[in-house]
Amino acid sequence: MRVEFVNPFLESVMKVMATMAKTEATPGRPFLKQDGYAKGDVTGIIGMAGERARGSLAITFPEPAILHIASRMLGEELNQVDDSVADCVGEITNMVTGGAKRILSEDGYRFEMAIPSTIIGKAHSISHRTSGSVICIPFSTVAGNFFVEICFDE
Amino acid sequence: MRVEFVNPFLESVMKVMATMAKTEATPGRPFLKQDGYAKGDVTGIIGMAGERARGSLAITFPEPAILHIASRMLGEELNQVDDSVADCVGEITNMVTGGAKRILSEDGYRFEMAIPSTIIGKAHSISHRTSGSVICIPFSTVAGNFFVEICFDE
Repeated sequence: MRVEFVNPFLESVMKVMATMAKTEATPGRPFLKQDGYAKGDVTGIIGMAGERARGSLAITFPEPAILHIASRMLGEELNQVDDSVADCVGEITNMVTGGAKRILSEDGYRFEMAIPSTIIGKAHSISHRTSGSVICIPFSTVAGNFFVEICFDE
Repeated sequence: MRVEFVNPFLESVMKVMATMAKTEATPGRPFLKQDGYAKGDVTGIIGMAGERARGSLAITFPEPAILHIASRMLGEELNQVDDSVADCVGEITNMVTGGAKRILSEDGYRFEMAIPSTIIGKAHSISHRTSGSVICIPFSTVAGNFFVEICFDE
């Protein structure tokens, strides 16, 4: 996977969190995802496919982080992960990928987005079936961390 | 979502299970997925994107079914859901979608496949962010049921 694929997603996450959830999400150092999978409680996942590259993006949230973010997005205090939280995660996933898509298209990488899906379940793990590497970007917020995973095959 | 999208996936699941896992998977009656989400322990998920349609496929397995299927695929008795089971689910997801893609392309529906991802976690649920409907096809095997969910936006 090309390193230049990382920054568009990183920028897009920060922007979506700031504008949609009025939450500052500070990126940590991206790392290669190895065997031990990060576990989260809610995950948004979306496929990307184009002529030059195909990929997958997953945003995995522990419960405290997504309850904070979804509460900010909806303007009401949420105390449990329910359908409205799942909707927020789908929306975040869509907007992050849409933002990155616009930036990447300027570099000649065009892809279409698939339909985002949301997974809810205590401490689930995600693996991606790619011949390349999976990049994980940790983000910190006032309500704890969340993780963005990206992989692309070319 | 068009009804004619269902059969290619249904046929492809049966064929992949028969050839890869020597397992007879008998389809039940497809139904519209409503609020109550089916829960599974391992899920393969893949995005599909093309000019005319974009979609998502999820195959959700309870543990008994996938342990049986993965044991048949790998030719060894598996007793727990681990990385090799996740690999099998990624492979199944890829082959099912690839098979359906070939059939649909004959009808003029062309799409590219994204990278499949596998989710592992006890009793997780999946929802799809689509403006259309989500079709769920239950399959039964000697080791219990599994579920295929398909959605397409046009």
